[in-house]
Amino acid sequence: MLAFAKAEYLERIAKTKQRMEILGIEVLCVTDPANLCYLTGYDGWSFYVHQMLLVVQEIADPFWIGRGMDANAARATTFLTENHIYPYPDDYVQSIHKHPMEFVADLIKEKGWDKRSIGVEMDNYYFTAACFASLKKHLPNAVFNDATALVNWVRVIKSPQEIDFMRQAAQIVEKAMAVALEVIAPGVRQCDAVAAICQAQISGTPAFGGDYTAIVPMLPTGSGTSTPHLTWTDQPFVGGEATILELAGCRRRYHCPMARTLHLGKPPQKLVDTAEVVNAGLTAALAAAKPGVTCEEVEAVWCRTIAKHGIVKDSRIGYSTGLNYPPDWGEHTLSLRPGDKTVLQENMTLHMIPGIWLDDWGIEISECFRVTEAGAELFTAFPRQVFIKE
Amino acid sequence: MLAFAKAEYLERIAKTKQRMEILGIEVLCVTDPANLCYLTGYDGWSFYVHQMLLVVQEIADPFWIGRGMDANAARATTFLTENHIYPYPDDYVQSIHKHPMEFVADLIKEKGWDKRSIGVEMDNYYFTAACFASLKKHLPNAVFNDATALVNWVRVIKSPQEIDFMRQAAQIVEKAMAVALEVIAPGVRQCDAVAAICQAQISGTPAFGGDYTAIVPMLPTGSGTSTPHLTWTDQPFVGGEATILELAGCRRRYHCPMARTLHLGKPPQKLVDTAEVVNAGLTAALAAAKPGVTCEEVEAVWCRTIAKHGIVKDSRIGYSTGLNYPPDWGEHTLSLRPGDKTVLQENMTLHMIPGIWLDDWGIEISECFRVTEAGAELFTAFPRQVFIKE
Repeated sequence: MLAFAKAEYLERIAKTKQRMEILGIEVLCVTDPANLCYLTGYDGWSFYVHQMLLVVQEIADPFWIGRGMDANAARATTFLTENHIYPYPDDYVQSIHKHPMEFVADLIKEKGWDKRSIGVEMDNYYFTAACFASLKKHLPNAVFNDATALVNWVRVIKSPQEIDFMRQAAQIVEKAMAVALEVIAPGVRQCDAVAAICQAQISGTPAFGGDYTAIVPMLPTGSGTSTPHLTWTDQPFVGGEATILELAGCRRRYHCPMARTLHLGKPPQKLVDTAEVVNAGLTAALAAAKPGVTCEEVEAVWCRTIAKHGIVKDSRIGYSTGLNYPPDWGEHTLSLRPGDKTVLQENMTLHMIPGIWLDDWGIEISECFRVTEAGAELFTAFPRQVFIKE
Repeated sequence: MLAFAKAEYLERIAKTKQRMEILGIEVLCVTDPANLCYLTGYDGWSFYVHQMLLVVQEIADPFWIGRGMDANAARATTFLTENHIYPYPDDYVQSIHKHPMEFVADLIKEKGWDKRSIGVEMDNYYFTAACFASLKKHLPNAVFNDATALVNWVRVIKSPQEIDFMRQAAQIVEKAMAVALEVIAPGVRQCDAVAAICQAQISGTPAFGGDYTAIVPMLPTGSGTSTPHLTWTDQPFVGGEATILELAGCRRRYHCPMARTLHLGKPPQKLVDTAEVVNAGLTAALAAAKPGVTCEEVEAVWCRTIAKHGIVKDSRIGYSTGLNYPPDWGEHTLSLRPGDKTVLQENMTLHMIPGIWLDDWGIEISECFRVTEAGAELFTAFPRQVFIKE
């Protein structure tokens, strides 16, 4: 069931250990489900309970720690051998009496690593304040270091196989977006349109199937287009209104996101004009995204382009994407915004999404791309326009 | 767009404040997206960035704090007035330079609440270790209290309108499970079956649509049935193998989960026999679930019933469910297991799921129910058996 050759996982672990070395981290506590998957292949919707991978500098393979009933998922989806799988008893689950991190601390003590430098993903959803409090309490001799996004930064440059999965995800999102544009019409319930979109996302293509996306379809409609993260209702789409579609395809947990805007009926001139400006800015910024250029430089190209037209945008215009689990398909590393001095490198993969959200309307047109020597290589070939359905 | 009358939200806030009073909490930091929704109606897939509701003992309405672009979602989906909506600038998002909790701390200082007793949801996914570290650093004079699940415990008893939504969710999951049983067959790709299931979940019924479920369909198949949380692949179902289906319907964020097991072809005798034992245990435990009985007493009935047949289960057999967001539809309050002395009360709603997972096979049959004076009232009427498709 492994999505990659074992050698690729070992290379990822080696790169992780190099970063640990630089940061003086001897034991790394990995809680981000995407990082668990990246380093070992682990895949299951078990992240709603606490689970962890321990990467120990001098030991080749990581240790999986999770709920007893999920140990067979570790056996089924990873290359880890039995002596690297540590299931905890069920009474640790969502209990006020004991916390799973006590089990982790016990293991760390048992192994004699409790006086070491321990890295923790401080700002990951799956490393709660209670997790850290428990580890600190039960490992009083350890030195804790913030290792937020340590593995994420290893993930930022994609391998050929990862890019292949993203290309497959791209085929899926193209199909899903085409379905969306086809089914949305005045009088159609939003839920029925999303049902068709999700059907397309998961069914995938005859050659390969789709996986669940880390974010469900977002489709603010009408005045809801003034904000990006509304999901659907069972109300019908209304003629004369716009709908923003932000969807992804997902293949073996690798995403290709895409946003487009659809207007039912003749669009207002401001929407048409703004789409032109956004497209000009997007085109210019994509052309600037080359190895050696920084994230903030790419964003500055966007800003200069749209400023000529009197538009100001005060939020980032893109981020790294690829492997992920709910609640986000962004990788929490680089962002295309002022102050981000990350230098773009070949095979970084980004979602450039310069959304504009105003008082009671908005627009989104985006592209997911790979950084190549020749510049941005788009994952999808989908018309970059405001779609209009009369 | 509010799902409930404003009076119902105000009642929930009042109950939350009563609990705050008992625990000596003057300012409550609410980060669980389900709790945000429960107290104000807030609904959007914006929880992948930090956001919060501040409930202040002497101030009627809570304060929403979130990302700038999501402020219009707060305006659209809640009853909060403009002076209770505090958007933070985008450069706080996923940045190593500044953390959204600094913005929260600044607001708390500005309001003069920084010497107060502040409650935080220590073990919630959306209150990370970094969130707490930031608040403690920037509010050195505050006294912090663990308020994990404080609001969740208010949620544990459902109102008539909440139960109505769960009944609608029940109709959706019945439909989705029927679709699953219909489409799964030897040679059918798992992804195509799940595409049909999700289509049914989201499309809902002609009278009302479905929402996204907090957990995607889980369907371990073959030897994968030895563990509960595997999702689908694009491989075909195989004759002679079993598949576990754990699905939910969701209506306005309220869930009704259901698990069933399907066998393609003549099932092995051990599966048939175990299903009988599970059903006997489930029936007995459901009959015991009445107001005044404790959670552990219900579980003990299950244990005694299955022990006669030589089966042992070492994990909880159920939990509270209802309103939720990814990654869990469980409410993180009561569990049906030894040691949980929570007394069942009328209008608590639970998912009883006594799954059995062995070395290379397993079985799940579950029921979602409401506690009534007359005992457990099932939300669904779906045959409680191992389904067999020849």
